[in-house]
Amino acid sequence: MLLAGRGSSDNAARYAQYLLGAHNGLGVALAVPSLFTLYESPPRLSRALTIGVSQSGQSPDIVAVLREARAQGGITLALSNEPESPLSRAAEYTLPLLAGPELSVAATKTYSAQLFLLGHAERGARGKSRALGRARARAGLARRGDRTEFGPRARRGPRFGLRASLIVLGRGFNYSTAFEIALKLKETSYLPAEQFSVADLLHGPLAMIDQDFSVVLLAPSGRSLVDVPELLARLEARGARVLAISDAPDVQRRVPMHLALPRGVPEWLSPIVSVVPGQLFAGALAQSLGHDPDCHAVCLR
Amino acid sequence: MLLAGRGSSDNAARYAQYLLGAHNGLGVALAVPSLFTLYESPPRLSRALTIGVSQSGQSPDIVAVLREARAQGGITLALSNEPESPLSRAAEYTLPLLAGPELSVAATKTYSAQLFLLGHAERGARGKSRALGRARARAGLARRGDRTEFGPRARRGPRFGLRASLIVLGRGFNYSTAFEIALKLKETSYLPAEQFSVADLLHGPLAMIDQDFSVVLLAPSGRSLVDVPELLARLEARGARVLAISDAPDVQRRVPMHLALPRGVPEWLSPIVSVVPGQLFAGALAQSLGHDPDCHAVCLR
Repeated sequence: MLLAGRGSSDNAARYAQYLLGAHNGLGVALAVPSLFTLYESPPRLSRALTIGVSQSGQSPDIVAVLREARAQGGITLALSNEPESPLSRAAEYTLPLLAGPELSVAATKTYSAQLFLLGHAERGARGKSRALGRARARAGLARRGDRTEFGPRARRGPRFGLRASLIVLGRGFNYSTAFEIALKLKETSYLPAEQFSVADLLHGPLAMIDQDFSVVLLAPSGRSLVDVPELLARLEARGARVLAISDAPDVQRRVPMHLALPRGVPEWLSPIVSVVPGQLFAGALAQSLGHDPDCHAVCLR
Repeated sequence: MLLAGRGSSDNAARYAQYLLGAHNGLGVALAVPSLFTLYESPPRLSRALTIGVSQSGQSPDIVAVLREARAQGGITLALSNEPESPLSRAAEYTLPLLAGPELSVAATKTYSAQLFLLGHAERGARGKSRALGRARARAGLARRGDRTEFGPRARRGPRFGLRASLIVLGRGFNYSTAFEIALKLKETSYLPAEQFSVADLLHGPLAMIDQDFSVVLLAPSGRSLVDVPELLARLEARGARVLAISDAPDVQRRVPMHLALPRGVPEWLSPIVSVVPGQLFAGALAQSLGHDPDCHAVCLR
C-alpha cells in the first residue's frame, strides 16, 4: 500500500502507516512524489493500493502519483474534501471527507476527518464503530475545552515558558500527531518546531537539549508510555521546559504544565483526540505572539 | 522492499528509497520499528526483501525488524560494518561495509560507505561501476578540501552568519543528504537544525522563514535544481542567510557563501559527494562554538 499526501495530509498518512501496519499487517509506504514528477521514474504500482490524501484535492504532485498508479492498473483511492477535485477525478474511487469547507488556512478539522476516515480501515478491534464514535465525541469535548481548560492554559504563551527552541515529541500512533502539531506551530506561530519520535531523540539528538528548549510531549495512555518516565528524567536533568498532553494520571502528576486529554480513548484512536489541544495551543500561542493564525496564505504571497 | 535504520543509517536508507525507486522501479518503504517492538504487531514480510542498515549492527529495534522478517520467511540482508554483530547474525545475508572502525562518534565514513554500497544496487545506468568509482574518488577530493577550500570557509562560524534558527534544504536524491547534515549539526553543534524537502517547505513552512534564519541548501546539478532559482528568490526576499553546497556555476554565482562541489558527478551519485562538505562544516561549526564534535556519547550519559 502506498499513501501520498503533503503537509497535514502526509501526517494523516503516517497515522495510517501505523494503524494499518499494527492492526491489519499491511506494509505501508509513504510516497516519494519526486519520483513521479521530478524524475519521471515512478515505482511499479500495478499490484498496489495507492491512496491519495488531500484536503483540497488540488496538490499537483499527489494527483500525479494517483494518475500514474491508475495508468499502471493499480487500485487507486482518493481521500479528499472535494469530490470534484483533480485528485478525485484521477482516482478510480473516492471517499469524501464530508467535513464541510475548511475554514482554517492551516487545516484542522479536515485533518481530524482524515484520521476518522482512515480509522475505519482498521480491522480486528472489538466494538470498533463504537470506539470510533466515542473518540470523535471526545475530540469534540477536547475542542469545547477551548472555552474551558485548554484555552486559558494554552493562551498563557509567556507562562508556558517559550524558550529559544521548541520541539514536539511523540511515539507510535502519536508520532503522526507530533508531526502535525509541529507543522501547526510552524505555520501559525512561525516557530521552527521540529518533531521527533522519542526513540530517535534518545538515539542521538537528545545531546542538543538544554535549558534553551521547550518541549511539547504527546503522552496519551498506551504502550508508547513505556519510555516516558526515562525521557522526562532526561529532559528534567537537562533543564528543558516540558508541556505534556496526556490523560495518564502519572504523567499529569509529574508534569506540572500539562493539557489533560479525556480518558478512555484507546491508543490506536488517541491521535483523533490528542491533536486537538495541540491545535488549540498552536493557535493560542500564535495569537499571544501577535500573529493571526489564518494569515499565512497572505504572508506567503 | 523494506529498509530499516536509525539515525544516519535511516538517512542512508532514504537515499536507497529514491535510488531504487527511480532506477529500479521498486516500491521501497522505510520501516516503522515501533510496530515490531512496542506494538508487537509487525506487517507481513514473507514476500519482501528486508534490509537492515546499521553501522554497529547493535541497534536492538533494527535487529528485531530483521529477526521478524526472517522468521516470516522473507529475504533478509544486513548492511553493517560489523559482520559478527547481532544484526548480521539475525539476517540471512550480510554485506559488510569494510570501512574500518568508525572513529567519529557522529558516524561519517560509514555513512559514505553505506551510500556507496547501496549505489551498487542501482541498475540501468551506463558505466555504473566507473561512475561509482569516480564519485568515491571525488568524495575523497572533497574530504581533502578540509585542508584547502571547505575547511577555512566552514570554520568561519561567525562569518557564516549563524542566526537564531538553522535549517537544511535538499530535494530528490539529496533529501537524504539534508537529513544527514541536519543530524550532524544536531549531534555535534547541538543546534536544532531541521531538514526540509524544498517541495514541503514551499507547501507551508516557508511562512516561518525570516532574517533570523540561516539556511544550508544542497544544490548539486541535476533535475532537483529546477526549484532552486525560485527558492533562492523567496529566501532572499525573506532576509534569510544562505550557504549553498553546489557544483552548479549558476548557484555559485548567485550565492556568495557557498561550498563548491567537484564537477562531473551524476545526480544519482551526488549524495556520496555532497554530504562531505556538510560533515566538515558541521564539525568546524561545532569547534567554532567550543564543542568537541566527538564528545556527545559522554555528554549524553
